[in-house]
Amino acid sequence: MKVSETGEFGLIELIAKAVGRTGDKRLLIGIGDDAACWRAKGLQLATTDTLIEDIHFSFKNITWRELGWKAMAVNLSDIAAMGGVPLYALVSLGIPADTETDDVIELYKGMLDLAGKHKVRIVGGDTIASPIAAITLTIIGEAGSEEEILKRSAARPGDLIAVTGSFGASAAGLAIMQKRLSLDKKTEKALREAHFNPMPRIEEGRTLVKYGVKAAIDVSDGLLGDLGKVCQASGVGAQIYSERIPIRAAVEKHFGNKALKLALTGGEDYELIFTAPPTTINNVAKKLSCRVTIIGKITKNRAVQVLDADGNEFSFAVEGWDHFAKRKRA
Amino acid sequence: MKVSETGEFGLIELIAKAVGRTGDKRLLIGIGDDAACWRAKGLQLATTDTLIEDIHFSFKNITWRELGWKAMAVNLSDIAAMGGVPLYALVSLGIPADTETDDVIELYKGMLDLAGKHKVRIVGGDTIASPIAAITLTIIGEAGSEEEILKRSAARPGDLIAVTGSFGASAAGLAIMQKRLSLDKKTEKALREAHFNPMPRIEEGRTLVKYGVKAAIDVSDGLLGDLGKVCQASGVGAQIYSERIPIRAAVEKHFGNKALKLALTGGEDYELIFTAPPTTINNVAKKLSCRVTIIGKITKNRAVQVLDADGNEFSFAVEGWDHFAKRKRA
Repeated sequence: MKVSETGEFGLIELIAKAVGRTGDKRLLIGIGDDAACWRAKGLQLATTDTLIEDIHFSFKNITWRELGWKAMAVNLSDIAAMGGVPLYALVSLGIPADTETDDVIELYKGMLDLAGKHKVRIVGGDTIASPIAAITLTIIGEAGSEEEILKRSAARPGDLIAVTGSFGASAAGLAIMQKRLSLDKKTEKALREAHFNPMPRIEEGRTLVKYGVKAAIDVSDGLLGDLGKVCQASGVGAQIYSERIPIRAAVEKHFGNKALKLALTGGEDYELIFTAPPTTINNVAKKLSCRVTIIGKITKNRAVQVLDADGNEFSFAVEGWDHFAKRKRA
Repeated sequence: MKVSETGEFGLIELIAKAVGRTGDKRLLIGIGDDAACWRAKGLQLATTDTLIEDIHFSFKNITWRELGWKAMAVNLSDIAAMGGVPLYALVSLGIPADTETDDVIELYKGMLDLAGKHKVRIVGGDTIASPIAAITLTIIGEAGSEEEILKRSAARPGDLIAVTGSFGASAAGLAIMQKRLSLDKKTEKALREAHFNPMPRIEEGRTLVKYGVKAAIDVSDGLLGDLGKVCQASGVGAQIYSERIPIRAAVEKHFGNKALKLALTGGEDYELIFTAPPTTINNVAKKLSCRVTIIGKITKNRAVQVLDADGNEFSFAVEGWDHFAKRKRA
């Protein structure tokens, strides 16, 4: 059945049923009133991000369920980058009137697949007709105190720069789909999943806060570009070392001399970049359960430099995802 | 200059400049980090609404500044309908790469024109390329306690039904533009403004809460349709009297026998419908500074009926805006 037959209010009922009751005593009002309402304590966080058809994704490549997961992931990642605990999600969904109702429910299931892992509740939103699919999520989170937030502006000269996980797999997955590259099926699947099913570093963000890290960002636009934002917000610069960048093994194996560029500028890895004095970094690295790599250091000089093993500077430091540039994602 | 030349990050800087510093001590982080952060107290409210080009508006009729106002108004109206105090706004904006940067700033000025009247701060968002303009606002608000929220589910049999202001002007303004009707210029202007510059009933919502009203909704989809949502959420019905509907005078004068239908089903008036026992209604009506009209009563019977002066029932009770029906707004 198409949403034009179900109608807006029939669709909202189906969505409310898919979302279910939350069992959250702090939530006073969820889906079905003019606004959601909850009991707050401490600091509240809010972030919003939109994915638009044929700009951020194409139904040629992605399923509705994967789109739901990804929309939730990119938003939760922003709460992770603040060191916060995500609580509630609002979903504003634009879809053509001839969309299948089952596809919309699949989209919600994709969001709920990931939301459920972090006890995040969908508490409201808006469902509207649109010539193309457009999904905007707003995530509300919380933090304990002002000392327990990760900021872009808190990097200081002398800090070491570290990252969680590895880089390049999401951009490689996209390249495989867009350029119809053919690798072995297992590798293709892994890289495709890195692009469509990223895992936001919520627990890792909490651990960073707990062990005294103050500065972080998540990597959506690219490692270099996002590190550049930290430097700009903090009034500092950075030197990172090309041979220390943790490139996903499959990317290094299959993309040869393009692997480093994919890792540094490809984006959508949703890993965390964080900076802190050496003792803090070394301590927190032991506490994090994921791979952690120290890739460089914060400097007074306001440039972001990538140095090779001989100390020579690479030249692609300015790249990164710009939404108004003429590139397209999958 | 076009946003493709300014670039995403140049545009964000211009937006941050237009928004300015907030001077709000509760706001710890505004535009420029991964999420906004504020000190919360009591209950928090959140609502989100999207306006999409050629579905909700057309640049043939609306200016960018008016679009900004309207996007802010429809969202603030949801906070008004909860009896809350709006605090913060997040703006997710999709625009074609060839959009003029000046137009984007005009859009923000439109949002700020209205936000400023209610001390609402724009604290974050997302700016992305899109084939059509799409603007999603999320508003965060607050309420004091569980007793101080207006709910759709709180209408009870025996309650009187009252409304703020008058109805039909927004739909009439839209009809003038879509059907190229020609009225006197002053009337055309007033009805056009009703459509593009609605004023959310924030203060009125606060007054309702203060004087003991428990049930309300704002009129976006149409008086009858939105009253129907209150009835459905409360498990009750309603009888309203056609001759008591406060139709905007210019609509009654120029739209003849279509005026009542515009008032009951046209939508986008952003007035409040509220219900309460007679003594509460009569008391709060004296406290509200706007026009207040008692239009009917809540019944046990689960239907929404419109009765004429002779007690006969009108038959258009099921209409109202459905986003997936084949209608278009201006």
